[in-house]
Amino acid sequence: MFEEFVLAASTGDLSAEPRAREAADAVEFRMDLAADPLDQLAAYDGALPLVVTNRAEWEGGEAADLGRYDALAEAIAHDAVVAVDVELAALRGNAPTGERSHATALRESAREEGVSVIASVHDFESTPEVGTLSDLLADAASEGDVGKLATTANAREDALAMLRATHEATAAGHRVATMCMGEPGRHTRAVAPVYGSRIGYAPVDAADATAPGQYPLATLRGLVDGLLETDAEADG
Amino acid sequence: MFEEFVLAASTGDLSAEPRAREAADAVEFRMDLAADPLDQLAAYDGALPLVVTNRAEWEGGEAADLGRYDALAEAIAHDAVVAVDVELAALRGNAPTGERSHATALRESAREEGVSVIASVHDFESTPEVGTLSDLLADAASEGDVGKLATTANAREDALAMLRATHEATAAGHRVATMCMGEPGRHTRAVAPVYGSRIGYAPVDAADATAPGQYPLATLRGLVDGLLETDAEADG
Repeated sequence: MFEEFVLAASTGDLSAEPRAREAADAVEFRMDLAADPLDQLAAYDGALPLVVTNRAEWEGGEAADLGRYDALAEAIAHDAVVAVDVELAALRGNAPTGERSHATALRESAREEGVSVIASVHDFESTPEVGTLSDLLADAASEGDVGKLATTANAREDALAMLRATHEATAAGHRVATMCMGEPGRHTRAVAPVYGSRIGYAPVDAADATAPGQYPLATLRGLVDGLLETDAEADG
Repeated sequence: MFEEFVLAASTGDLSAEPRAREAADAVEFRMDLAADPLDQLAAYDGALPLVVTNRAEWEGGEAADLGRYDALAEAIAHDAVVAVDVELAALRGNAPTGERSHATALRESAREEGVSVIASVHDFESTPEVGTLSDLLADAASEGDVGKLATTANAREDALAMLRATHEATAAGHRVATMCMGEPGRHTRAVAPVYGSRIGYAPVDAADATAPGQYPLATLRGLVDGLLETDAEADG
């Protein structure tokens, strides 16, 4: 997983999966946004593999307490689940008390199950300078199988910094997934894959965006495929 | 002209113009690639405005001598012609003998006709570092109404440098058109407009590319429009 770019359709409702099949490579199941997420998982018989995310409140999600790790531990045992998102701050001990032991235990369980770990960082305010972005990506990529970094671009400059950090991290051998949230960075959702980003996210239904500045799913698929296509493929 | 992004469909055959109308904002008439270019111009009754280019051999084109200035001087008098491409090296006196006086006289004539001047630089070997790109863009933008810079990307690093130079030139108030030729920089044809590039080029017919790494016309239109679209437009 994640050897090549993966477009994940985000949703809290797995019954939406058939609408994602044409454009997405996977579904990101936002358990923190779902009603009865474990029941939904048990009933899931869709075609797309699942990335499970149970985003903590302190990282911009809606999961309130450590109980979210129990739900994730149960989720990763499901055959369809190929990856689990874990906040880097939890893995590194920079999160509220108790997070680190739960996060590292979940990572161990994931590896026993053959489930990839996405160590993620989100900044809903701003985009740090390139050096800080590079450090965050190196940290995240070392803690997970993929390091995910999503920051908020307040200007084009921020988007350029993210593209550069993505390029440098990839050139250094790290497996990363990057994007800028917010309008000035919107294009990075389509362009960062050119510089090595392994995962893109878009809502299954455009009205249900799970982060600021997301493209509609089919739009992002078209943009990424167009930008990643080589001359040789285009000429063929 | 060029207050907003213009997608120019390049061709040496103006009878191709109807096929360009759906996707292009203008036609770049490559007079150096055309049979009887002045006759074609005289007969032109298409819907799209024309950018006329008569590329010198020493800049990668097929126009062999100073006679190309006579053809351009006649071309800019045509009502459909809104812009003329003149090599920066000619305007700056860095080109073969006699170029400068012809180039500056053509620029004067263009301004009297209300025709915009695109001062252009091409590097078919490589992409200089960001500082050099910025200097070239500032020079080109000061000699013409738009400064065009096309270099060859041999690695992703080169593409990033071009995006940064485009951003900085635009932030400094210069009107520029930028792109990288070659596969590692292909995406800049779609992405540079996000950073301020005012002109993109694509062949009317995919088989007739006029520079390395061009996207098919409809593909470039889709990519640029998708990347330039703001959240507000997408939500509407």
